[in-house]
Amino acid sequence: MAGKRYSEEKKIVYYDTDISGRLSLGKLVDFMMLVSSDQSKQLDVSLQQMKDEGLGWVVTQHIIKIKKMPRLDDTIKITTQAKTYNRFFCYRDFEAEDQAGNLIATMHSVFVMMNLKKRRMVRLEDRFIEAYEGEYTTKIERLASPQPVEKPDQEHDYRVRFMDIDINRHVNNAHYIDWMLDTLEPDFLLHHELTEMNILYKKEVSYGSTVTSRMQRDGLKTYHEILNDGEPSCLAECQWKEV
Amino acid sequence: MAGKRYSEEKKIVYYDTDISGRLSLGKLVDFMMLVSSDQSKQLDVSLQQMKDEGLGWVVTQHIIKIKKMPRLDDTIKITTQAKTYNRFFCYRDFEAEDQAGNLIATMHSVFVMMNLKKRRMVRLEDRFIEAYEGEYTTKIERLASPQPVEKPDQEHDYRVRFMDIDINRHVNNAHYIDWMLDTLEPDFLLHHELTEMNILYKKEVSYGSTVTSRMQRDGLKTYHEILNDGEPSCLAECQWKEV
Repeated sequence: MAGKRYSEEKKIVYYDTDISGRLSLGKLVDFMMLVSSDQSKQLDVSLQQMKDEGLGWVVTQHIIKIKKMPRLDDTIKITTQAKTYNRFFCYRDFEAEDQAGNLIATMHSVFVMMNLKKRRMVRLEDRFIEAYEGEYTTKIERLASPQPVEKPDQEHDYRVRFMDIDINRHVNNAHYIDWMLDTLEPDFLLHHELTEMNILYKKEVSYGSTVTSRMQRDGLKTYHEILNDGEPSCLAECQWKEV
Repeated sequence: MAGKRYSEEKKIVYYDTDISGRLSLGKLVDFMMLVSSDQSKQLDVSLQQMKDEGLGWVVTQHIIKIKKMPRLDDTIKITTQAKTYNRFFCYRDFEAEDQAGNLIATMHSVFVMMNLKKRRMVRLEDRFIEAYEGEYTTKIERLASPQPVEKPDQEHDYRVRFMDIDINRHVNNAHYIDWMLDTLEPDFLLHHELTEMNILYKKEVSYGSTVTSRMQRDGLKTYHEILNDGEPSCLAECQWKEV
């Protein structure tokens, strides 16, 4: 398979866990995104170098599959590779392994390149994509979109806080996941594990705004929507199993 | 000075930073608390071993002094030692150094031992305190308490979220700091750096409750209070400098 591989190990500490002692999903995504940004540094196409030229990567979709969520004190190894790209999209894969080398989670992500000033998507620039040695293809992946929430069973409002914004000046992807999962009852969260999440980012939320997180549940499936000014900013569909 | 020393290095990554690129204060406290819990493991008096006997450490106060907050990609070294203790209190110190060995932050913390079932403070048990080789003293430190908020300039409500609770089943200390600082205007936070914080934890907040974070500002001093059911759960006093 094309695309340079890059790995890092990560130990799960207490502030990465939820009440069950498992790694929280938002943190797993944080770890994976960090590994991808460290690979960019290693290949001399860092986010800082892109920023200096007014460019940035933005994630539009993650498809996350969890076999077994690691727990407090576990060490996991995360590997990433940017396998393929076309004119506008870069497809990046992530794998997490436990210490015995068992695959415990995967993530398939879609990245686009942004002109930071115009806040507009641009064609991928060769000098920032070639280093990953992914395969160029004319194919555009047709990934399923999460179903919208039709009749919410629960909704909560969240004001975007100063601490939700990182150095990249936008709300960290992991916060959307926290807002989504927080609409589920604690009893549900304690007795279920997420096995799959398809999350689609449509429109950035900015500091100071208040978002509404709406959730609809249908047995072991949950549907989520983050609304900002009445417009969907982020959608997700989750599959759960009982534990 | 008495008390075994223990150190760990930590690299600041993007999700540890705020919009200014500096390490967020809550994260610094998280890092320090982690180093202290890792020392406990190393000395074979881990939190898990205490939990097995129905005991736990609880922080009642932190006095934090910041000379220079580290930034994205900086590596810092955190050292801790439990210097002294008396019948009820253990006093622990933390130091953070930059890569050149300059002292950039300190924290002085007061710990008490809790009977986890009765949620009551108990006398320090020798077998869990001796390993640190701190000095036993009959002296009880008289640390200043933060001044209460009299006329709040700003207040916000926060619902305690599922993700705010960690494996220890209480709200991570760092979240109180986030609730407090979030009441300050972004413009103030961007143009000021915290140099000192005295934070006093009075009463635990539980999952599902809504807290009110109140703040009063007097020039370069800010006073903070977290109210839960009308009672103060946590108080703090901060000193800032312009940047």
